[in-house]
Amino acid sequence: MYTLQDERRVYLDYNATTPPASFLSRKIQEWLSLWGNPSSVHQIGQNARSLFWSSKLHLAEFMGCHPLELIATSGGSEANNMAIKGLYEKYFPQDPKRDEIVISNVEHPSVKAPVEALRIKGMKVKYVPVSIQGELDLSAYESALSEKTFMVSIMYANNETGNLFPVSKLVKMAHKVGAFFHCDAVQALGKVHFNLSKLGVDTAGFSAHKFYALKGAGVLYCRKGLLPGNLIHGGPQERNRRAGTENVLGMACFGAVAQRGEEILKEFKQLEQMRDEMEQNILSSVSGAKVLGKKGKRLGNTSCIHIPEVQGETLLMNMDLKGYAFSVGSACHSGSLNPSGVLVAMGLSEEEARMAIRISLGLGVSKEHLNRFISDLVDSVKRIRSFS
Amino acid sequence: MYTLQDERRVYLDYNATTPPASFLSRKIQEWLSLWGNPSSVHQIGQNARSLFWSSKLHLAEFMGCHPLELIATSGGSEANNMAIKGLYEKYFPQDPKRDEIVISNVEHPSVKAPVEALRIKGMKVKYVPVSIQGELDLSAYESALSEKTFMVSIMYANNETGNLFPVSKLVKMAHKVGAFFHCDAVQALGKVHFNLSKLGVDTAGFSAHKFYALKGAGVLYCRKGLLPGNLIHGGPQERNRRAGTENVLGMACFGAVAQRGEEILKEFKQLEQMRDEMEQNILSSVSGAKVLGKKGKRLGNTSCIHIPEVQGETLLMNMDLKGYAFSVGSACHSGSLNPSGVLVAMGLSEEEARMAIRISLGLGVSKEHLNRFISDLVDSVKRIRSFS
Repeated sequence: MYTLQDERRVYLDYNATTPPASFLSRKIQEWLSLWGNPSSVHQIGQNARSLFWSSKLHLAEFMGCHPLELIATSGGSEANNMAIKGLYEKYFPQDPKRDEIVISNVEHPSVKAPVEALRIKGMKVKYVPVSIQGELDLSAYESALSEKTFMVSIMYANNETGNLFPVSKLVKMAHKVGAFFHCDAVQALGKVHFNLSKLGVDTAGFSAHKFYALKGAGVLYCRKGLLPGNLIHGGPQERNRRAGTENVLGMACFGAVAQRGEEILKEFKQLEQMRDEMEQNILSSVSGAKVLGKKGKRLGNTSCIHIPEVQGETLLMNMDLKGYAFSVGSACHSGSLNPSGVLVAMGLSEEEARMAIRISLGLGVSKEHLNRFISDLVDSVKRIRSFS
Repeated sequence: MYTLQDERRVYLDYNATTPPASFLSRKIQEWLSLWGNPSSVHQIGQNARSLFWSSKLHLAEFMGCHPLELIATSGGSEANNMAIKGLYEKYFPQDPKRDEIVISNVEHPSVKAPVEALRIKGMKVKYVPVSIQGELDLSAYESALSEKTFMVSIMYANNETGNLFPVSKLVKMAHKVGAFFHCDAVQALGKVHFNLSKLGVDTAGFSAHKFYALKGAGVLYCRKGLLPGNLIHGGPQERNRRAGTENVLGMACFGAVAQRGEEILKEFKQLEQMRDEMEQNILSSVSGAKVLGKKGKRLGNTSCIHIPEVQGETLLMNMDLKGYAFSVGSACHSGSLNPSGVLVAMGLSEEEARMAIRISLGLGVSKEHLNRFISDLVDSVKRIRSFS
C-alpha cells in the first residue's frame, strides 16, 4: 500500500513530508471528475460537496470528534495560525487581564511565529523548557500557569526528536486555570492513537502531507462551542469560519487516508523495533554517537542522533549522493543552515546541534533499506572524519 | 484540450469554477512522484522545489511580472486577505492619518469581508457605486480619493455580471494621491490579456481553480519592494512571506495551465460571439428578459439575465434536472438564498435580483450545448410562468 515512488532512493525523512499513499493515484484520477464548486446549488457542485463532506466524516471518525468540529485549511501552518491568532482575536478582548501565553521552547515555527506576532501586540509569552532528554519540565509548566494565562500551545510530538508530551495532563492543568489549550498535532497523526474529544484540547492543527496525503490541505479541530476569529475572511464556506473555495481533491485524499488510519497505526507500530535496532547499530559502529531525547517518550519512527566531529550538512550531502534522504536542522525548513532551534533549546551548543542528523521512518521503509543506510552512513562518517 | 468530464451535463458556470484542463490528468500522475518537501536539502526535496519554482516561472511569464513577485497561496480568498490585511498591518502604522479604504460596491466577499474587518479596527470605508449598466462611477471614485486614502481595492472583472473596470486608469488616480492599489483579478485570468507590470497595481489576487487548474492554489502578486505583513506566520517559505509547506502539485498544475495561457486567451475570444448569440436568442424568446450590466464593458463569457416572474432558484433547480449548471446569486456561494449583493448594489430590488440567472461560458462549451440550453430554458421559463 505504501511503496516509495522511486526505489533507487531510500527516504528517511517522513517527519518532513510523506510520499502520498499509492492507492491515491487511482483515486485522484476518479476524483478529478468531481471538480464542481461545493457552494454551487446544481448537481455538479453538489457532487463535489458530497466528496468534501465525506472526507470530513472519515477524518472525524479517525480523530474522535464531530465532523463539524473540523475546519478545512491549507495545511498545518494555517491551522496553527488560525487557532492562535483567531482565539486571541475573538476571546482576548473579553478578558484582557489574561495576557499571557504559555508554549514549550521546542514548538514548531508555525506556533512560535504567530505567538511572537501576539507578543508584539502586547501579550506576554512564557516558555516551558524541555530537557536534553526530551522531557517537558512539568514543574516549570505548572508555575507558568495562572489566572493570567490566556492560552497554552504545546505540540503533541516534536518533529525533530520525536518527543511526546503528556497532552491530556497538560490540558487538565491549563483548563484548571481557565486557559485555552491549542495542540500542534501535525506529527502525531498516523503515529499515535488519540481521540480528540477525550484528549480535551480546545483546538488542534493537522496536516495532510505528513499523513500520506497531498500538500496544501489540513484541518483545524475546534471543539464545539468555540468560535475563533477568521484568518481568511470572505465567503460563507466552513460555516463562515474559513473563506475560500474548498480544496476538494486535497481533502478527499486526506479523508481517504484517514479511512485507513487504523491500518496505518498498526503498520506504524512495526517501525519502532526497526528504529531501535538502527539506533543500536549506529551507536555501536559510530564512536561517540548518541541519541537525543531518548529518555523522554518518543514517536516510534524518529531518531535524532548526534555524531561528534561530523557536520550534519556535510553528512547529509554525502549520503544524498548515495541515494539517502534525511534531515538536519528543523524538519520543515531544512534548507536553512541555522542550527536547529529545538536542539539548542534542549541545551545543545550551536556547534553540537549542527552535528545532529534526524532520521524519521514511515510506511514503505524496510529493514533492508535501513541496513544499507547504516552501512553507507558508517562509511561516510569515517570518510568525513578522516578529512578533518 | 478542454473537454468537460461528463458529457451528459452542460456546464455553464465557469465563473464559479472551471473543470481542470484534461491534459492535467496525465501530468498529475507524473507529478505525484515529486512529493518531496521543497524545503528539504536532499534530492527528493530539491526535485519538488524545481517543479514548484518552474510553476512560478510559467505564471510570471503569462502574467507579466517577475517570479519573485508571486507568492503562492491557497487561493484567491487568501491572496485578497493577505494583500488587504497585510498592507494594513505593515504600512498603516507608518502613516496613520491615511485611514480610508476605497472599494467598489460590487467587490467579492473575499475583499469586502477583510475590509469590513479593518473597518471594525477603525478604518473608514468608502464605497464607489456601479450603475445598473455595469459602469463604475468614475467621478464618485475621484471624489472618494484623497490624501487620506490608504488603499483602494477594485476588482478587474465582476464574477456575476462580467463587468470590467478600467484598472489601469484607476491605479493611476489612486497612486496620484499616494494610495496602494489592490486588484482582485481572479475573474480576469485566462479571459483578458493583461501585463501586471504595465497595469501598475501594487498587489493582485489570483485563483487556480478559476483557470482550469485545481482548487486549493492561488497566487498573490506583490510588486517588487512591497512587503505586506504575513497572514500565515511560521517557516521561511516564500521568502518568509507565507509560511507552510508549498502546495507543489497545485502550483504545478496552475503553472502548466499558465504555460498554455496565450492559447486559452485565443480560444476564449471565440466565446464572445457565442455568448452574444445566446443572449439575443434568449431575449427574443423570453418576454421581458434583459441583460444586466450590458452597457459597461464585459467579459466575453458572462451573461447575467433578469427574467421577470421567474425565481432564479426555481429555474436553476428545474434546469439542473435537465442537466444544465449555472448560477444565481453570487458565484462563490450560490448555496446561500440571499439575493445577490452585487445586483442589489447595482440598483435592482431584492425581488428583481432573485429573478436573475448568471451564465458563464468557458473552454469546452459548444454552440450545440448552448442551442440545447436555450431551447430547454425557454420551455422551463414557460412552464414556471404557467404555474404562477
